[in-house]
Amino acid sequence: MSRAKANDSARSITAGSDFLHLTVADAPPGGRADWLAGRLRQAIAEGRVPIGARLPATRVLAADLGVSRGVVTEAYQRLTEEGHLTGRGRAGTVVVGAPGAPPAPPPAPAEPAALFPPTPGSDIFDAVRAARATIDLTPGVPDLTAFPRADWLRSERAVLRRVAAADLGYGDPCGAPALRGAVATWLARNRGITVDPVDVIIVAGVSQAVGLLTQALRPAGIDRIAVEEPGSLGVRQHLNNWQVVTPPISVDDAGLRVDELVASGLRAVLLTPAHQFPTGVVLDGDRRRQLLDWARAGGLIIEDDYDAEHRYDRPPVPALRGLLPEQVCYAGSVSKLLAPALRVGWLLVPRRLRAAVVAAKRNADLGNAVLPQLVLAELMTSGALERHLRLLRRRHTRRRDAMIAALARHLPTATVHGAAAGLHLTITLDDAAVADTEVAAATLARGVKVQPLSWHCQRPHRPGLVLGYAARTATEIDEGVAAIAAALRPTGRPARSAQEELDEHEHGQQRRPA
Amino acid sequence: MSRAKANDSARSITAGSDFLHLTVADAPPGGRADWLAGRLRQAIAEGRVPIGARLPATRVLAADLGVSRGVVTEAYQRLTEEGHLTGRGRAGTVVVGAPGAPPAPPPAPAEPAALFPPTPGSDIFDAVRAARATIDLTPGVPDLTAFPRADWLRSERAVLRRVAAADLGYGDPCGAPALRGAVATWLARNRGITVDPVDVIIVAGVSQAVGLLTQALRPAGIDRIAVEEPGSLGVRQHLNNWQVVTPPISVDDAGLRVDELVASGLRAVLLTPAHQFPTGVVLDGDRRRQLLDWARAGGLIIEDDYDAEHRYDRPPVPALRGLLPEQVCYAGSVSKLLAPALRVGWLLVPRRLRAAVVAAKRNADLGNAVLPQLVLAELMTSGALERHLRLLRRRHTRRRDAMIAALARHLPTATVHGAAAGLHLTITLDDAAVADTEVAAATLARGVKVQPLSWHCQRPHRPGLVLGYAARTATEIDEGVAAIAAALRPTGRPARSAQEELDEHEHGQQRRPA
Repeated sequence: MSRAKANDSARSITAGSDFLHLTVADAPPGGRADWLAGRLRQAIAEGRVPIGARLPATRVLAADLGVSRGVVTEAYQRLTEEGHLTGRGRAGTVVVGAPGAPPAPPPAPAEPAALFPPTPGSDIFDAVRAARATIDLTPGVPDLTAFPRADWLRSERAVLRRVAAADLGYGDPCGAPALRGAVATWLARNRGITVDPVDVIIVAGVSQAVGLLTQALRPAGIDRIAVEEPGSLGVRQHLNNWQVVTPPISVDDAGLRVDELVASGLRAVLLTPAHQFPTGVVLDGDRRRQLLDWARAGGLIIEDDYDAEHRYDRPPVPALRGLLPEQVCYAGSVSKLLAPALRVGWLLVPRRLRAAVVAAKRNADLGNAVLPQLVLAELMTSGALERHLRLLRRRHTRRRDAMIAALARHLPTATVHGAAAGLHLTITLDDAAVADTEVAAATLARGVKVQPLSWHCQRPHRPGLVLGYAARTATEIDEGVAAIAAALRPTGRPARSAQEELDEHEHGQQRRPA
Repeated sequence: MSRAKANDSARSITAGSDFLHLTVADAPPGGRADWLAGRLRQAIAEGRVPIGARLPATRVLAADLGVSRGVVTEAYQRLTEEGHLTGRGRAGTVVVGAPGAPPAPPPAPAEPAALFPPTPGSDIFDAVRAARATIDLTPGVPDLTAFPRADWLRSERAVLRRVAAADLGYGDPCGAPALRGAVATWLARNRGITVDPVDVIIVAGVSQAVGLLTQALRPAGIDRIAVEEPGSLGVRQHLNNWQVVTPPISVDDAGLRVDELVASGLRAVLLTPAHQFPTGVVLDGDRRRQLLDWARAGGLIIEDDYDAEHRYDRPPVPALRGLLPEQVCYAGSVSKLLAPALRVGWLLVPRRLRAAVVAAKRNADLGNAVLPQLVLAELMTSGALERHLRLLRRRHTRRRDAMIAALARHLPTATVHGAAAGLHLTITLDDAAVADTEVAAATLARGVKVQPLSWHCQRPHRPGLVLGYAARTATEIDEGVAAIAAALRPTGRPARSAQEELDEHEHGQQRRPA
């Protein structure tokens, strides 16, 4: 205990203004919080305050600078919202991200145009991730600066204190009982699903869940699974990689066209009923009933509940799984609740598929790692995960609003889809002749990463972009959308963003996303 | 105090109707308290509101539903009288019992005889693990009580302090750069392998590594992989599950019979050259040269280096991979260094197989979880893992000696194999007519779990047992070996172990493994 304290204090920044070389006399009267935030931002960007460093307590820094504590609190709060700092209660305020300081450059980034082929290969998401950009608006991640580091560490400490040595050996391939119980409770409370914990299979995310299902379904003669059109490229690639054919079924304003599914004669469908990817449509009541009728007649539903908890306007619709457990496979994960890097999710299947899915999971990896499962169970049962979700919802709502405002300002003719929930929205472009892959490439050439909508379509579709907002600050969102608008302008002249113009106007200097 | 309060409120059900999916319009007029009580009762029965959960304050729920507070108070009162809720003043209203919802009974443990069939299915290790026993002498795990919990927590704290938010998103399917670098250094120091960190692929253990390889090799026309005879049942089952045929090649006192391999015409072999499983033989110099010649002529070696670091008499032989990197796939893990529950290993492959193996890993799970990788990298680079390995070696050596002593005492006619390294040894029995599966079953009936050698053989073989000693104390080892001896005695009378006799002599009371 005293050792941990010694380490902690050794890592913290020397209290006070020393490390910033601040003189409060430089601050404009009435703008001290602004001034302090700016100086801190600069110090972080220049590496004078490294990632991982702990900032002085507000009380200490305020006393040291001779300003009121409110000034320091406000500056810290601003940088926290920008994603540079994270506040962790007793652990203090810690630097988690540097503004405009991208981490170690990836080897040999591809040219923007080469990154956005009309028909991407299965390593496309690796390539896009490795590409350099100033602002990343690709969808799929929550605000990662909000990851509850202190809660995680506290839970890990509790787990390491009590875990039995025998539980560190080879375990049940279905997962640790503690997490299976916690997930069952979570699903009951948040998704209207009643499930016995022994029927919860812990997996390494939804993509693994889908792979395991394909292996279990093939012996039953199912090697064609209908998917939504538009629908997730990643999921479709994943199914194809497991040698499953993916015929497209249209999605309209009410969700999946169940009449098309019925007419197709297909026996299985994978869909995202709570918040369709990428359109954001919620499967409406009539369609739900039609789909459940189709399933009762023998159809199999694979419900990808990828971001159901992130509903902003009203409680999410309950999962289909809750209504028809013997005809619905259900997959969810913590990728959008906490972080994709955790690689933890859950899968519920009808009892007749259980043995085959468990065998596939055993075959894949003998089961998920145990310690992170126990830590996650602790976060779920202690209420920390729900607290985190409430925080994310508030923050994501503000960022969603910032993106809608930026779109209204820079791209007033684009149509916005699916902004009532989730971590992303989709826009379609008014000019149907433009290739959205080229727009994405031109936007990346301006330092901003986005996904072309056409990647998520098997049939011709109006061009568009899929834009993630959850992981970006309001400023980044505005600059990113401005870059899209600039990329769309017909002239060859690299246009300047509204933010740049604003900056120049205010500070007499020009910034450009590199 | 304020902190405790914050935690308490986090445990409460999210206020309002969210968690119940209630619409007050469904309630019959004049019967709202009845209706609400019924809905709450159902939610508790189905586990959507778990035992221990705190319900919203009457005031809050009433406002949320748009009903009078009296309606909620009456519903709570009714459920309290039924025994489902308890009111605790300022602590709120808490769920204490679920109506008619008994917990799921644990599955009945299998009978000892049923657990040891001559031809086990692919869920055999799950079944054996689930079987109850007083002493577990099955092989495969290190001393798990030695797991460095404090070092792990300290490293996790350091990792959480400095990890960049961006690293918590989707990552490189090959693993975190920090761990790939640390593994490259570890392999250079401990296994004589020179490898560029970018060529290290982080996997979920050796079993996943083997599965990924089969997927990469099939397109190259390799769907038959020679295995050692005797050789690991688990590895063979794993290959078979991936639709790979596993012809047996004999192992003698010098290791794999390379002449048999050459004669077989097979193009690939999976083997354990540093410490053969289960015989413990080290592949000798002549055989290594023959095997490398075979590989130079086009053969592919899959080197399963499962416990190479655990050599007691002299430094381990260097890995084959170090000599012929373009013809050797190499797999190792922390399962025998730290704990199987971590599910972390590494795989090196010839460059021509790299893209296919990476695609298979991406397909399997999009890459290992990041936080445990970074913690492990920290343990490796800080020297904590080497310190731990030295501790394990000392402890395992003592336990190995205890098992040899116990065998000399209780089973003097058995032959001991492979005690110079590893976490287990193998004995063969003098009576060739006995079925070792029956011996294992009779031993389990005495409360001691062991593995029959015949499981690890595809051809008839002298009966024997594979005995793990690393995870057990000297006392447990002695009692366990005594139970084997008792099970082997021809009379039907349950014999008493030397330890029991000793105990009775010393303490005047009898102990029996239940």
